Amino acid sequence: MIERLAPRRRAVAAALADVGADALLVTDPRNIAYLTGFSGSGGAVLVEDDGEAVLCTDSRYELQVVEQAPDVGHVISREYVAGVLGRRRGPADAPLAVEADQLTLSAAAGLRRALAATGGADARIVETSGLVETVRRAKDPDELALIARACTVVDEAWTHVLGSDLVAAGRTEREVAADLEHAMRRAGSDGVAFETIVASGPNGAHPHHVPGDRVLAEDDLVVVDFGATVSGYASDCTRTVALGTAPDRLVEAYEVVRRAQIAGVEAVRAGVPCAELDAVSRDIITDAGFGEHFGHSLGHGVGLDVHEAPAVSTRSTSTLSDGDVITIEPGIYLPGLGGIRIEDTVAVTGGGGRSLTTTSKDLRVL
Amino acid sequence: MIERLAPRRRAVAAALADVGADALLVTDPRNIAYLTGFSGSGGAVLVEDDGEAVLCTDSRYELQVVEQAPDVGHVISREYVAGVLGRRRGPADAPLAVEADQLTLSAAAGLRRALAATGGADARIVETSGLVETVRRAKDPDELALIARACTVVDEAWTHVLGSDLVAAGRTEREVAADLEHAMRRAGSDGVAFETIVASGPNGAHPHHVPGDRVLAEDDLVVVDFGATVSGYASDCTRTVALGTAPDRLVEAYEVVRRAQIAGVEAVRAGVPCAELDAVSRDIITDAGFGEHFGHSLGHGVGLDVHEAPAVSTRSTSTLSDGDVITIEPGIYLPGLGGIRIEDTVAVTGGGGRSLTTTSKDLRVL
Repeated sequence: MIERLAPRRRAVAAALADVGADALLVTDPRNIAYLTGFSGSGGAVLVEDDGEAVLCTDSRYELQVVEQAPDVGHVISREYVAGVLGRRRGPADAPLAVEADQLTLSAAAGLRRALAATGGADARIVETSGLVETVRRAKDPDELALIARACTVVDEAWTHVLGSDLVAAGRTEREVAADLEHAMRRAGSDGVAFETIVASGPNGAHPHHVPGDRVLAEDDLVVVDFGATVSGYASDCTRTVALGTAPDRLVEAYEVVRRAQIAGVEAVRAGVPCAELDAVSRDIITDAGFGEHFGHSLGHGVGLDVHEAPAVSTRSTSTLSDGDVITIEPGIYLPGLGGIRIEDTVAVTGGGGRSLTTTSKDLRVL
Repeated sequence: MIERLAPRRRAVAAALADVGADALLVTDPRNIAYLTGFSGSGGAVLVEDDGEAVLCTDSRYELQVVEQAPDVGHVISREYVAGVLGRRRGPADAPLAVEADQLTLSAAAGLRRALAATGGADARIVETSGLVETVRRAKDPDELALIARACTVVDEAWTHVLGSDLVAAGRTEREVAADLEHAMRRAGSDGVAFETIVASGPNGAHPHHVPGDRVLAEDDLVVVDFGATVSGYASDCTRTVALGTAPDRLVEAYEVVRRAQIAGVEAVRAGVPCAELDAVSRDIITDAGFGEHFGHSLGHGVGLDVHEAPAVSTRSTSTLSDGDVITIEPGIYLPGLGGIRIEDTVAVTGGGGRSLTTTSKDLRVL
């Protein structure tokens, strides 16, 4: 999909005028992959205001860079930043944009040394935020296909795990997580998109519980939050199941979350402000009396990062548009008792929303 | 092991005088875990020059922070940095050390705003590197036990995978990686310490190959580099096996790597400069005529991070001391043909070296 990458670089280049710079130093690995195709773990890219780019990485990746990023310039050096600055075509002392959310103070000091060494000692460093990430929001068809594959992987893995009775009383959270991750790998995942959450019984009240040695027990609810990666793109899905007869209050809360989640997915369409979308689900939970037990935001963008733009929260200022891929993941967490979360990865395409994760959200009793 | 954490904070506090600051703002998540016991994904810690500390995290972790970090002060706020600065006991405008390798330009701008809001607008920000990481080098007995467990996990998983014929012609690299990761999970790993490498045949010539759809073939060498985590601590191990009859040149190279690796492990002891240790293995490979095909360093420290201090490389200025845990991982990479790497995680204890990964390094023909 190399031919698709030049437009990405041109879109970034077009944003440079707004920040008063004539080149952007890209140091975030996902942004490097997005703009050039290069997936190695170390490197830097300079995008100039005409969209031309040069990539510097070290000798470990000498072969890989030629295969993955044929349409940008290459420099092989351990000094990534000096490497790309040495190939800058614009004036060495023109304003240079940097990724302020990624560049550390140490790296910034190294950048100033590299600028001095390449005649740019007087160059103004323009701290920017989200230049590439904004372009990344609009997924192209190839990207949507990869995210859809990552979603198919989680669907297949979940179906396998349920069908093989792997979520069952007597097993530990850790064992369930291991089996689910293995099933994702076997279904085609390159790895996990994030640490799998298996939160059983009272542990379910912690939204970010780390699976441990707790043994799943009869009448537990079990929250399972898991994601795959396919060619760098993530998926994100949560299901909550019951072992036997869960307490009435949890079953009641489950139905509230289910209604809130389905309403949220149905409300996804281009033009909807993300804060309004958050309110669609949140109001259902609040009206049912559980508002204080839903403390996190409704969702987030998914792509090369499992958490990326746009935020879907009460405070979000974003509006949905075609090509966005987001999660819808309301939850209710009752301390000491347990929790529920239901989550799909949803694409905004053709103006409407389409859930890419598709396994059943009815309360499954195992 | 809470009672062990106060000495860690005092050791960091003792280093503050050298950098001319009277408090350190800790923003690196591993360093936060190391100094306080708190393992959540968001927070900040302020360590003052007497070793007292305050931790700020958000409401997701309100219960967890009390359990994990009982002997430091707590603030619950989304504004982590402002939260800890608001509890600073020393003068608000005294020099404040920051972790320059972790703090981004955006976070630094936020810090300046938080300082201004807490009466510290004139405080000098002292950019430091490795203050906590230097203390982290000397593992205490509890830490050594966790790393040893993570090493036992990789030994058990490797033994299982070989004993179950899971590394075999006809299987893909991806399948082997999946099965090995599953075996580590089942053996007690909390997750992978890094992306598992399975590099078969010619892919073995790439030290950082990502496992893909290549099918393992008769007469391949297969490089497998894998690590587990146990309670946050990593292990790191590489073994290279043969399927059938590998080309003579690779078998020859294997024996060279094996000799170099064993010599490296045997040379590990307190007082040895890391650059000399690198040379012990490297000279064997160079003398055998493969020097140009061993492009990376001999090893690195292992602990909360799978790559941490000290570096074991030609350019390292560190000297080994008791409590260090390092890898010894020489390799030979022959473009188009294949590669070999053999790696153990080795602890420096009682003055000598002890390999914590213990599976056989003889060439195993499967």
